[in-house]
Amino acid sequence: MMSGQYFYGGIEGGGTKFICAVGNGPGEIQQEIRFPTTTPTETLERVCDFFTPYVKAGQLKGIGLGSFGPVDVDPASPNFGYITTTPKPNWSFTNIYGKLKQDLKVPIRMDMDVAASAMGEYTWGANKGLDPSMYLTVGTGIGGSYILDGKPLRGLVSLEMGHVRIPQDEKLDPFKGACPYHGNCFEGLASGPAILARFGKPAETLAEDDLYWEQEAGYIAYALVDYIFTLPPRRIVLGGGVMRKDFLYEKIRNRVSRLLNNYLNHPMLTSSLEDYIVPPALGYRSGVLGGIALAMDMDK
Amino acid sequence: MMSGQYFYGGIEGGGTKFICAVGNGPGEIQQEIRFPTTTPTETLERVCDFFTPYVKAGQLKGIGLGSFGPVDVDPASPNFGYITTTPKPNWSFTNIYGKLKQDLKVPIRMDMDVAASAMGEYTWGANKGLDPSMYLTVGTGIGGSYILDGKPLRGLVSLEMGHVRIPQDEKLDPFKGACPYHGNCFEGLASGPAILARFGKPAETLAEDDLYWEQEAGYIAYALVDYIFTLPPRRIVLGGGVMRKDFLYEKIRNRVSRLLNNYLNHPMLTSSLEDYIVPPALGYRSGVLGGIALAMDMDK
Repeated sequence: MMSGQYFYGGIEGGGTKFICAVGNGPGEIQQEIRFPTTTPTETLERVCDFFTPYVKAGQLKGIGLGSFGPVDVDPASPNFGYITTTPKPNWSFTNIYGKLKQDLKVPIRMDMDVAASAMGEYTWGANKGLDPSMYLTVGTGIGGSYILDGKPLRGLVSLEMGHVRIPQDEKLDPFKGACPYHGNCFEGLASGPAILARFGKPAETLAEDDLYWEQEAGYIAYALVDYIFTLPPRRIVLGGGVMRKDFLYEKIRNRVSRLLNNYLNHPMLTSSLEDYIVPPALGYRSGVLGGIALAMDMDK
Repeated sequence: MMSGQYFYGGIEGGGTKFICAVGNGPGEIQQEIRFPTTTPTETLERVCDFFTPYVKAGQLKGIGLGSFGPVDVDPASPNFGYITTTPKPNWSFTNIYGKLKQDLKVPIRMDMDVAASAMGEYTWGANKGLDPSMYLTVGTGIGGSYILDGKPLRGLVSLEMGHVRIPQDEKLDPFKGACPYHGNCFEGLASGPAILARFGKPAETLAEDDLYWEQEAGYIAYALVDYIFTLPPRRIVLGGGVMRKDFLYEKIRNRVSRLLNNYLNHPMLTSSLEDYIVPPALGYRSGVLGGIALAMDMDK
């Protein structure tokens, strides 16, 4: 650690693991740590232990936190900074923002995990400088975030892009859907747990030539086309566990192309979908680097 | 006309009629004119004739134009300010912005008609001061606009919210859809021409107890829920010819409520949908007043 230098902190607070880093960007990470998510007390103590030396040295200008959810990010709400109604044991109504702020005494900016990933890819990754741009994760859940005017877009409530309703051909896929609220919404049809519920085995064990992947690509394409018509991003980064099946990208692009049918007259959408729908450039670090980007943005 | 006073101009340029007004808001309209849309030359001459006295008196600070489309509103495009690939005879690739700018020599701001209506309702109507807010028209076409940070939201291309894909139960409604590009997209299923194509008679002649209205409300509700999950507006104004059937509002609210299923924890969405999904407060003047609002915004 060089004295006299200043850094920013990033936290990717996931339901399975936490990643924390200190630095100023992808090539300037001072230190990084990953550990499993256990109880809130134990987990947040490990977070504080990691950052405390930098705080004591007066080197940490702020921390950006991307948290699993649902999280309340409305500053006017009495539950601001809480992980709210999560089914994850012990974490329901955890004041994660308040706890870290109290213990570390540095400025903290909190957002949804997917918003942090979107900021990471916008600041240093595949969406670099593209405004508006979009990040969608298809994994344990499905969630998305737009970056507009350099910040994650907010509305009346948090974006819940995974819950849009899309067409389902029940002759080809009679699955009822796995979303406890909406049944066969996009997440209910296409998330990792939906694939598990459908076949009794996890998505990663389904062979590349399994016919289901055409359905999966179709669901993702329907949703992407909805987002493109509703708020056309300059590029879409598609991440998350299900998207580790690399062959999905081309299937999705082909279907998006057919669904758009050249209605939107822009070369990115008519002939360059391979540059329009892309994997994350920062890999598993989109989220933690996005935390650092959120912290740096606070300082502007 | 009082000398020494300044005004703004608004134009709602529709495919059927043009409305022009000079003033400073709903209660301060100096003059207003409506006439049918004929050829571009004749129509734009009438527009110029209307505004010219105010221009000559040095009283017109600028004009906001909401135009039927598709319109190219990308300042970097060679076709900026053009009505582009419209099927309307004689209007394809009409440089409406260039023509008005050349003849009237005042600052002009151009946007899609629905974006102007959204600005009108945001500035003086049912969405007053609500940011982000949304306006959706369901009529000859279906289109929507978000107001964010006081301006119509832009993306890589213009918003085309009418073309989202939504679930269709072909047992209840076997109609193939009327959109020449996408068949059974939202506009292809639920616009005025789609209803006409389905029943051989216009929407306004369908009785209130016609079972189809449940389908229509269902399609609109599916799309609204998609928009709410993708970018949750603070309120949605629903206008356009089809929405003159007042009984549709309550049907739509009931369906939106069932589709959301209390997933989004905000009182507006869980118990106040009658304040959340509302008719335009400015009636047929949303568009022309929105033009005035766009012109005033240029001046800020």
